[in-house]
Amino acid sequence: MPPLTKDVIRFGAFVVTGQVFHVSPLSYALVNLKPLLPGHVLVSPLRVVSRFNDLSTAEVQDLFLTVQRVSRTIERVYNATALNIAIQDGRDAGQSVPHVHAHIIPRKRDDLPEPDTIYKMMEGEEGDLERQWEEREAGTGSGDDKRGKFPAVDADEARTPRSNEVMEKEAQWLAEEMAKDAEEGR
Amino acid sequence: MPPLTKDVIRFGAFVVTGQVFHVSPLSYALVNLKPLLPGHVLVSPLRVVSRFNDLSTAEVQDLFLTVQRVSRTIERVYNATALNIAIQDGRDAGQSVPHVHAHIIPRKRDDLPEPDTIYKMMEGEEGDLERQWEEREAGTGSGDDKRGKFPAVDADEARTPRSNEVMEKEAQWLAEEMAKDAEEGR
Repeated sequence: MPPLTKDVIRFGAFVVTGQVFHVSPLSYALVNLKPLLPGHVLVSPLRVVSRFNDLSTAEVQDLFLTVQRVSRTIERVYNATALNIAIQDGRDAGQSVPHVHAHIIPRKRDDLPEPDTIYKMMEGEEGDLERQWEEREAGTGSGDDKRGKFPAVDADEARTPRSNEVMEKEAQWLAEEMAKDAEEGR
Repeated sequence: MPPLTKDVIRFGAFVVTGQVFHVSPLSYALVNLKPLLPGHVLVSPLRVVSRFNDLSTAEVQDLFLTVQRVSRTIERVYNATALNIAIQDGRDAGQSVPHVHAHIIPRKRDDLPEPDTIYKMMEGEEGDLERQWEEREAGTGSGDDKRGKFPAVDADEARTPRSNEVMEKEAQWLAEEMAKDAEEGR
């Protein structure tokens, strides 16, 4: 499979090109450093803007058609029955990286001990994408010393920050699955 | 101000025409029976479909341009600094009424005791839109007897189910504010 793009793709201040699994004319989708649940991905406009209201008409349209396309594939390949789709639009709504991004989180019955746990995770330290990417760039935060801070998700191996190799493998797989859905007109 | 539409507008099985404050070619926005915070509104496709993936390309585009337009006005008139925009897509993701709807919730710094409270509220009984509308149609659920079930929001008068008159007044006001923003090209 050829690379999705020759361009460097940024998520806020971070270069995430290797984690991108889908690129549309104005948007892209990337896998997460620390998915809150397996299959938790993000969809962003290619242009780095912080607020939803900063997006042009064309960007809004492209962003949510991309969210729809991505969520279809994610629900299928992760055997989910539902999805949380959420934008924290601005810091006071819990946004950590100042770059518009829609969370797509595949859900299934009884996947979490409490139904609202997913939101606690989004709002808590485990959802602080900025800190995760910063720690990764600094080469910190990948050890067990951080685990104690995530009581809601202890013993969940998916909460360990993932290596580039693991993320790139997932991105490659999802890119192939997205291509299959596109070919089959799903 | 003339009525927004002559059609009956449905939210799932419920007629909500009087609570609608904005209508676009394929979508509409309505005020809530029990807003989780002041200014909490919903945007839905006019067509009653349950899953995001059921929407046509035109419906997705129209829905999110409507979300953008509505959120701009809501943030302004409620003096907010941020917004939560969220879709519970399917029952296992917390969806209560089987009709696609985006929650728009205006936020400001320290508006809730804990940042994740808003999500607890969305996922808990206080976010069960179907039950709220059913109780309203049955003429129940408007008394203090229900308050005990909402510990996260005790003493919050906005959590009392609102009368048609109150909702229609808010819808009328928001319709006017939406029209102002449209005239001024915001």
